[in-house]
Amino acid sequence: MATEILEVNVLTADALISNWQGHRRLTRRVIEAFPEDKLFAFSLGGMRPFAEMAWEFIRMAVPIVEGVATGEWKEWNEFKGTKPTTKSELLSLWDKQTTELNEKFPKIPPHRFNEEDIAFGQWKNPGIATIQYAIDNEIHHRGQGYVYLRSLGIAPPPFWERD
Amino acid sequence: MATEILEVNVLTADALISNWQGHRRLTRRVIEAFPEDKLFAFSLGGMRPFAEMAWEFIRMAVPIVEGVATGEWKEWNEFKGTKPTTKSELLSLWDKQTTELNEKFPKIPPHRFNEEDIAFGQWKNPGIATIQYAIDNEIHHRGQGYVYLRSLGIAPPPFWERD
Repeated sequence: MATEILEVNVLTADALISNWQGHRRLTRRVIEAFPEDKLFAFSLGGMRPFAEMAWEFIRMAVPIVEGVATGEWKEWNEFKGTKPTTKSELLSLWDKQTTELNEKFPKIPPHRFNEEDIAFGQWKNPGIATIQYAIDNEIHHRGQGYVYLRSLGIAPPPFWERD
Repeated sequence: MATEILEVNVLTADALISNWQGHRRLTRRVIEAFPEDKLFAFSLGGMRPFAEMAWEFIRMAVPIVEGVATGEWKEWNEFKGTKPTTKSELLSLWDKQTTELNEKFPKIPPHRFNEEDIAFGQWKNPGIATIQYAIDNEIHHRGQGYVYLRSLGIAPPPFWERD
């Protein structure tokens, strides 16, 4: 392989957070598309309802950005023990995190993106890989939410719209 | 926002193709996990069978890398008109693309990652965004394949295993 070319930098921190926030806007629309009761109760194949998946995204996003920024890995204090039980509570937490991500992401020291750390004391990866994992995990489970919506006869929001 | 920090480069071309090939190894395992008949016929909510989704990934991957590399957007010649009809044909195309991606990705001229182009004459984006879209699309639909597998009573491969 052409090693020199592979060392080229292809993504800025700005493009990364913009892409993530675009995905998060789409995930928000998927949450909104569920009828309230289905959001917390409907599932297929013994999997989790979509609210549980969204709750997982929330427990990962800001804690990961804080962990990559500071080296301290902890639960998101704001939400500790306050698992949402309604769609509006879930969306409200979602919006709070949107703001918090925009505030905290630019505080990540540049060297931390490539520095290895043990996320939540368990997963050893460079900061960029830990952040990308959070985004990929959101895309993965949101895709599952699309199947739930289709099975409920609801058209999901277009995958390619991120504004 | 702290603009200077956001201009920091966070990802090399090598990390990008490594992450993509890791996702492709996982997608290959998802294809393998389907019983032959279910791969081509099972679906939920009026969606496509997983073989159709995998066929979409194949039609995107190498053509996108070639398009970003050269500015020419075309179907993958190797597969034009040869849609696979068995699991082994699909996996054989998959493996051929794995090799082809490793050969062609390092030939992308560095400036093309940030240069805007109109992918397939339709979607205007920097090269990096077009490549990321292909990866995100694969994660999205593969997540749907996980619901199909679970609904069939089959445990999908772990999401976090990419080796």
